[in-house]
Amino acid sequence: MQALRTGRYWLTVLVRRCPPMLCAGLRGTSGFLGCPWDRPSGAGELRGELDRFGGVSVKLDALERLDPVAFQRALQAAIQKWRSEGRVAIWLHIPIFQSGLIAPAASLGFCFHHAESDSSTLTLWLGEGPSRLPGYATHQVGVAGAVFDENTKKVLVVQDRNKLKNMWKFPGGLSEPGEDIGDTEVREVFEETGIKSEFMSLLSIRQQHTSPGAFGKSDMYIICRLKPCSFTINFCQHECLRCEWMDLSDLVKSDNTTPITSRVARLLLYGYREGFDKIDLTMEELPAVYTGLSYKLYHKELPDNYRTVTGMD
Amino acid sequence: MQALRTGRYWLTVLVRRCPPMLCAGLRGTSGFLGCPWDRPSGAGELRGELDRFGGVSVKLDALERLDPVAFQRALQAAIQKWRSEGRVAIWLHIPIFQSGLIAPAASLGFCFHHAESDSSTLTLWLGEGPSRLPGYATHQVGVAGAVFDENTKKVLVVQDRNKLKNMWKFPGGLSEPGEDIGDTEVREVFEETGIKSEFMSLLSIRQQHTSPGAFGKSDMYIICRLKPCSFTINFCQHECLRCEWMDLSDLVKSDNTTPITSRVARLLLYGYREGFDKIDLTMEELPAVYTGLSYKLYHKELPDNYRTVTGMD
Repeated sequence: MQALRTGRYWLTVLVRRCPPMLCAGLRGTSGFLGCPWDRPSGAGELRGELDRFGGVSVKLDALERLDPVAFQRALQAAIQKWRSEGRVAIWLHIPIFQSGLIAPAASLGFCFHHAESDSSTLTLWLGEGPSRLPGYATHQVGVAGAVFDENTKKVLVVQDRNKLKNMWKFPGGLSEPGEDIGDTEVREVFEETGIKSEFMSLLSIRQQHTSPGAFGKSDMYIICRLKPCSFTINFCQHECLRCEWMDLSDLVKSDNTTPITSRVARLLLYGYREGFDKIDLTMEELPAVYTGLSYKLYHKELPDNYRTVTGMD
Repeated sequence: MQALRTGRYWLTVLVRRCPPMLCAGLRGTSGFLGCPWDRPSGAGELRGELDRFGGVSVKLDALERLDPVAFQRALQAAIQKWRSEGRVAIWLHIPIFQSGLIAPAASLGFCFHHAESDSSTLTLWLGEGPSRLPGYATHQVGVAGAVFDENTKKVLVVQDRNKLKNMWKFPGGLSEPGEDIGDTEVREVFEETGIKSEFMSLLSIRQQHTSPGAFGKSDMYIICRLKPCSFTINFCQHECLRCEWMDLSDLVKSDNTTPITSRVARLLLYGYREGFDKIDLTMEELPAVYTGLSYKLYHKELPDNYRTVTGMD
């Protein structure tokens, strides 16, 4: 889903409807509405915030109109200054309507770290040796839900509409930003098939790189076991060609399925026959140490006596 | 690690060292070296490639100098044209030295989809309802290796140098782009502690959102079990304060450790006492259907008789 744009973004769209007039100039005031006929400011000396790793972060103002040539000059001076002070890197945060300053920064060696919605971030490594800056997100997360009905021994499967080969697979899709994988599974199953379900366990994780559907990034594909809470299919014809409850044995024997679907079908069969504890990774919410937030943790079920400190050697 | 820049990037740095001169002009030739005194071209009609989802992809040339005002005009005409043809989205790929064209595009409603190294991609949804465009990568992947020596019942632990609280934890770090998690674990353990090790199994996955160390994105933290192949510690003083082989029971009982480290220590104890099959997720390489590549798949060990089609009801 396309990221929401900020209020500041829309205000600057309004301001920018007049053709931009760029000229080197004296530092002018930049009022809130920013009359387009104001001379852009001369940048002066760039200010940055030091972080605890020795880097400097420069955040440009969305509404201040900086002259690119003056900006480049100020940035070059800042690089020399911060390098002599032993700073290891510069982070440059540029609002989308200031993107005219990206090329001047790139001329001095900056390159994109990441960008989203109405802002981009560029970096320049100043330290010794290769850059030690942390990279940006590298993986998209896709999930699929194996909705298995223990009473009928049937599992919910779909055939994608938009694929080259119409193979049987579990319904699923990409996680939304900030969404837990269990929630994604339940949501995607419902959106694609009309079936309501409940998260039971994590079954399998697949990691793949240079994924064409992930803009060349990597892909983590997670399959979970779900329990059905409804049974009447009402599938999304935009996404699916077919959808049905299939006997698990038939899915295991089917040629018209992907290797990973076939493998998970076999895992389900193993669990159905010999106990789901044999295949399940359970989920638990735990507190994060530094942030005050919580996180979900998945692993094989740990017996109670091992959860406590007592019962040791 | 900062992404490598392309040859084209360095060539344009060379070209761009002369102050840019922007003016609306007639379409000029854009030779390979692009004399900076050439008039920028007038953009004319924008060309795009149709994808199989009904979107149009426009790739701007890194060395062609387009006038921003003329570009905006051409883009506006293209939007109207493609909208009337029923296209659902426009993808605009802009080399870093053409970033002067980002703000004109943003004025027409485009926003950043992603950016890396020497290029950014912007999108505009033309279809009905909310955007259905796939997002970019949402997760960074961090790994930690629990190097456990079954002979001495000791596990390798470190205290980070750069953290606020110096707690005992397993050595680890962020995966490099394109790196498998098992390889990351072995590499990070060696870089931080000097210990060589071998991947045995995946133990636990943690998912966390709005992670401060992940630029507000999500974080997938994966802990694996490793077997030591060497025992003499030579830890990286840049990253670690301390490093030692600690008795597993002591780590389980310790207060000076994170909840996740404590939990995994308990998992290890359970596995050590009752069999590692109780806690391990094994890894296997399988072929990808569409790409001809392969991927790594992790799940609880599946007995041989369930791997084959026979042995069914």
